[in-house]
Amino acid sequence: MFDPKKEKEILIALKKGRSHLNNVINMVEQGEYCIDILQQNLAVIGLLRSANEKLLSRHLNSCFASAMKGANRKRKQEMIDEILQINKISK
Amino acid sequence: MFDPKKEKEILIALKKGRSHLNNVINMVEQGEYCIDILQQNLAVIGLLRSANEKLLSRHLNSCFASAMKGANRKRKQEMIDEILQINKISK
Amino acid sequence: MFDPKKEKEILIALKKGRSHLNNVINMVEQGEYCIDILQQNLAVIGLLRSANEKLLSRHLNSCFASAMKGANRKRKQEMIDEILQINKISK
Amino acid sequence: MFDPKKEKEILIALKKGRSHLNNVINMVEQGEYCIDILQQNLAVIGLLRSANEKLLSRHLNSCFASAMKGANRKRKQEMIDEILQINKISK
Repeated sequence: MFDPKKEKEILIALKKGRSHLNNVINMVEQGEYCIDILQQNLAVIGLLRSANEKLLSRHLNSCFASAMKGANRKRKQEMIDEILQINKISK
Repeated sequence: MFDPKKEKEILIALKKGRSHLNNVINMVEQGEYCIDILQQNLAVIGLLRSANEKLLSRHLNSCFASAMKGANRKRKQEMIDEILQINKISK
Repeated sequence: MFDPKKEKEILIALKKGRSHLNNVINMVEQGEYCIDILQQNLAVIGLLRSANEKLLSRHLNSCFASAMKGANRKRKQEMIDEILQINKISK
Repeated sequence: MFDPKKEKEILIALKKGRSHLNNVINMVEQGEYCIDILQQNLAVIGLLRSANEKLLSRHLNSCFASAMKGANRKRKQEMIDEILQINKISK
């Protein structure tokens, strides 16, 4: 099972991101200055990236670590490939 | 005034991002596989970045272009500095 | 003409990047630890990004600012599109 | 030991990056158009990132995979933390 404290931190970052994103949407609808909207939207992206770091940390320390100890070579290779793919698309 | 068509496109990207983000939050709460959550969250980040590109495009083609034609040197410098700052923090 | 001080700063960042990159290549050839090589290579990328920020700053404050003051609408649109394209591919 | 084929691919990407970087430095010294230099420099960054993906792949499939099979819990934690740190600074 996942550590409930880590799960809470992930949810806090994501929900803070959602609340800021609602604000960004309001700013667009009210015709606020583009640069101010851009900066707020970059702050949302920052929160979602921080959630992703926590998700990756949780994954490497749980499912991934268990699989790497196991004997299933195919499963281990799949898990390594998943990390590489995530790293590739997160640029 | 802003082009209503561009504003609509920006809002569509942001609202699609919000809807996907709600889904990401559900996935965390239901204990889904971290890698699947990470990929969905990267998709949200992609939508927000796409909104940012549209916001920057709108800005450069409206307020920014007007200011650059004007005679106010201080205002022009401020607007150039804003672009540089956005570029710096968006990495 | 370009400010010679800014040009020097750009060249310093790029040449420091090249010198670090030579070191990264040596590290690979001598079979050093991958994570150490990765970190050094990320430092090179940081230097090149810093050179790009300086190049963009120089551009916006010189050619770009001149063109935006001019009367050639097509040229102005091209220059705005160049900034948007650079912003898009630099992610 | 490392797979010599992978090492060759890593070196090819890095040396191609160095050769392009030399060209970028020449372009600055010869006063070429900033946007052209920026694009070339982004191409160098792309090559170095591609080398980093290959380095991470090699690492996960060699040293990292071995350590994860081992019994040394402290070493395993260190290796996971290294991946997380690389992921953090590579944004």
